[in-house]
Amino acid sequence: MVPEGAYVLPNDNGAAPGIILENDKGKILMLFPGPPNEMKPMFTEEVKPILAKKSDTHLFSRVLKICGIGESAVENMLRDIIDNQTNPTLALYAKTQEVELRVTAKAADENEAGTLLEPVVKKAYEVLGDHIYGENEDTLQSVVLKKLRDKNFKLATAESCTGGMIASRIVAVDGASDVFMEGFVTYSNESKTKNLGVKKETLEQYGAVSENTAKEMAEGAAKSLNCEVGIATTGIAGPGGGTEEKPVGTIFIAVFINGELYCDKLLFNGDREKIRERASTYAVNMLRTKL
Amino acid sequence: MVPEGAYVLPNDNGAAPGIILENDKGKILMLFPGPPNEMKPMFTEEVKPILAKKSDTHLFSRVLKICGIGESAVENMLRDIIDNQTNPTLALYAKTQEVELRVTAKAADENEAGTLLEPVVKKAYEVLGDHIYGENEDTLQSVVLKKLRDKNFKLATAESCTGGMIASRIVAVDGASDVFMEGFVTYSNESKTKNLGVKKETLEQYGAVSENTAKEMAEGAAKSLNCEVGIATTGIAGPGGGTEEKPVGTIFIAVFINGELYCDKLLFNGDREKIRERASTYAVNMLRTKL
Repeated sequence: MVPEGAYVLPNDNGAAPGIILENDKGKILMLFPGPPNEMKPMFTEEVKPILAKKSDTHLFSRVLKICGIGESAVENMLRDIIDNQTNPTLALYAKTQEVELRVTAKAADENEAGTLLEPVVKKAYEVLGDHIYGENEDTLQSVVLKKLRDKNFKLATAESCTGGMIASRIVAVDGASDVFMEGFVTYSNESKTKNLGVKKETLEQYGAVSENTAKEMAEGAAKSLNCEVGIATTGIAGPGGGTEEKPVGTIFIAVFINGELYCDKLLFNGDREKIRERASTYAVNMLRTKL
Repeated sequence: MVPEGAYVLPNDNGAAPGIILENDKGKILMLFPGPPNEMKPMFTEEVKPILAKKSDTHLFSRVLKICGIGESAVENMLRDIIDNQTNPTLALYAKTQEVELRVTAKAADENEAGTLLEPVVKKAYEVLGDHIYGENEDTLQSVVLKKLRDKNFKLATAESCTGGMIASRIVAVDGASDVFMEGFVTYSNESKTKNLGVKKETLEQYGAVSENTAKEMAEGAAKSLNCEVGIATTGIAGPGGGTEEKPVGTIFIAVFINGELYCDKLLFNGDREKIRERASTYAVNMLRTKL
């Protein structure tokens, strides 16, 4: 039963509504349904504007997205700025292979916040340079796709240990289809040879997990449909399969851009899933820096 | 500084240790480092046994994994069992396209718990039948891979809208390489034709998002390296690309098993990522039920 005087936030499909009650002393009671799909839009669309009206100052943030450098290194590089700032404030968040820097200003409105944020954000860009790949809603994938689109390049992927994770991240970006042509999950040697033209001799001489194989995979993926760019991963995600020479976590990542080939050899730690995540992020970021 | 009499839980790399202090009244104070990677193994390996010694009764759970039926339907089917049980108790958890049923017994030891759990779990199997795909650590993928391995079948995937998500889930299972041969992310029509042998006439007459295309994709993926089993998805993940006839969320999922072809047409709701997740889960579960 909805109490008298309550403001009701409707919900679809006859599900439980949200309820807002305010007494004569200005105290507000808010009740929401539990499922995030129902609660989140209610909060964003209905509740946030109500709360915003209750205060003269608000918080405005810009989030800088960082990849290719660890959290503690970022913290050391920004030490002076972080210590000397009270408005805006700076906060670091470590993600898997990524770091987010949130710069938050307390201000009366967006304009004032922008004026406060701008010089601090500028300093962060000066210190961190190309490690910053984007802001706010940007992802490594969306930034890479934009770069490829701007250059009119087409992309293909060839994955062994990451097993489709890179392709899946790229396809997660709306509109990927004008840049991303195809991906190969070549989980057997036969598939590497048949689809990517990796030479049998390369597999025999150097093994599937090697710089030579990674490079032939990246080139083969690109050339399949005449794409300018190819990216490839091959490695040992574990828990089995490691050797003394190539322990679990050893991954070769190759990038092919218009005839040029690059390859990095990495050693990631973590379990199977973490190693695959780290390799996927590294690969997309490597492509970003080479473009 | 570590207090006198404290029990220290060591941490790697000189990171902060965990600390356990117990006073003469049996009150325990425990301090842990924050990072989940450091805190979780400390809790499981060191703290859990200490806590277990403090009580005569313990909780033991079996988690039944359910797919292909919604949470409320499961709840209705189990209504009698849920209402009439106090030990063990039953609890339902809704996941994306999946439901978990946790059956928890309070008992002195594992044997006693097993005796309490067995008849209730048996009833749940009688009611839910093949909707239960596994228990505890099982995933749809691990169960499907086991079925394929038992039949000595090899698997290939062909994905359009899911974009490698199915392949990535399969590769997440340790030891997938003896069953999973290759996956194709055919995100352009050219790729569908070149790699999977999808006919140009099929694409022209029915479109890339159609039953015919999905079936030719599944068969083409399987036949590329003579696999017995192929699975394919093609659809509109949105937010753009929907039409009146094929709105956003329309997905065709096809399964090829030793010459037999099956295809389901689905309409999923949610954003781009949720639609892709739901389609991937449906596809793996469809393969499970057809095997």
